[in-house]
Amino acid sequence: MDWTLYVITDAKLSRGRSHLEVAQAAIEGGASIIQFREKEMTTRQLVETAEKIKELTEEADIPLIINDRLDVALAVNADGVHVGQDDMPAALARQLIGPHKILGVSASTVEEALQAEREGADYVSASPVFTTPTKPDAPPPTGLEGLRAIVEAVNLPVIAIGGINEENVAEVIGAGAQGVAVISAVVSAPDIAAAAHRLRETIEAARKGA
Amino acid sequence: MDWTLYVITDAKLSRGRSHLEVAQAAIEGGASIIQFREKEMTTRQLVETAEKIKELTEEADIPLIINDRLDVALAVNADGVHVGQDDMPAALARQLIGPHKILGVSASTVEEALQAEREGADYVSASPVFTTPTKPDAPPPTGLEGLRAIVEAVNLPVIAIGGINEENVAEVIGAGAQGVAVISAVVSAPDIAAAAHRLRETIEAARKGA
Repeated sequence: MDWTLYVITDAKLSRGRSHLEVAQAAIEGGASIIQFREKEMTTRQLVETAEKIKELTEEADIPLIINDRLDVALAVNADGVHVGQDDMPAALARQLIGPHKILGVSASTVEEALQAEREGADYVSASPVFTTPTKPDAPPPTGLEGLRAIVEAVNLPVIAIGGINEENVAEVIGAGAQGVAVISAVVSAPDIAAAAHRLRETIEAARKGA
Repeated sequence: MDWTLYVITDAKLSRGRSHLEVAQAAIEGGASIIQFREKEMTTRQLVETAEKIKELTEEADIPLIINDRLDVALAVNADGVHVGQDDMPAALARQLIGPHKILGVSASTVEEALQAEREGADYVSASPVFTTPTKPDAPPPTGLEGLRAIVEAVNLPVIAIGGINEENVAEVIGAGAQGVAVISAVVSAPDIAAAAHRLRETIEAARKGA
């Protein structure tokens, strides 16, 4: 798995561009994973949209992860599902998707990360690392220290999310994150592909420097 | 299966009473099926609430059907799932829940009802039969004639829903519905159990008269 640049689609933050346009441009720019996150659509629309995104991710040979909606993930045979602390409990999600699909779990503390690991997560997203306007109801940020503590606590890849951008991404990689998940830093950019590309290059440079 | 009185919980229409209180009272009053319908809660809350309702329906030995959310239905091992025309396509829902769980599909036309039957529905809900304030975005009502046409078209039990109450329920049964699904007629009543009980008695009397 290449966890480098995990792009989460969010139609509301995408300046009028659709999930599909965002996913396409993010893939062009070097996204290594796409997560489809959408809370407003009907289930029918979710399934139809996810099916179309899956065509793109399959062609690019990268995984498609569905946020929260395990029914949609199963319906389109996505590569995995990501659950937050308000979503399906991780152990139940693992049981329903089986052993082969990717299960990601958001964790804002070491305790949540350890629980996610016990319950069958394939990766943990340390969330949020920095304060972010994208999720006003998010838990307090972990900061770089909290991220490092989670990285040290679990035997899973840790993806950092929340307020990460070109300026701070090197520190996040330095703290041990296997990759970075972004929403606004990529999907709100005027040129999504270019933003993804620059972020990916910065991450790869940080890895070499580390 | 006893399709007589299918009560759909709706916390918004329940005068401050919870899904659990509504389900409990409806069961006391003679509901033969409970459907849990909720569009606002987080997935975690949906699973937790559905688990509690399932304890009640199991104790009463009646089925629990989950509206739309197949993930929640699978998570709590509910007896079935009900999908509308904006939800998961019926064929996909059948594939994901397997052959044994109950699959219900809303149909407002004969064409939709026949498609539901082809795609593996166990019952069809003719919806809405009358105009109803509960679903302002619902398709045009079938009326008793439309209900009768659906009953004659499919080899499945047809449950009537939409604007049905003690005054018109006998006509609905006369038109061939196997049972009646209600929201406001029961859950908005001051005494939910009493409203369910009266409705059930009226349905049973109509069947004897028919």
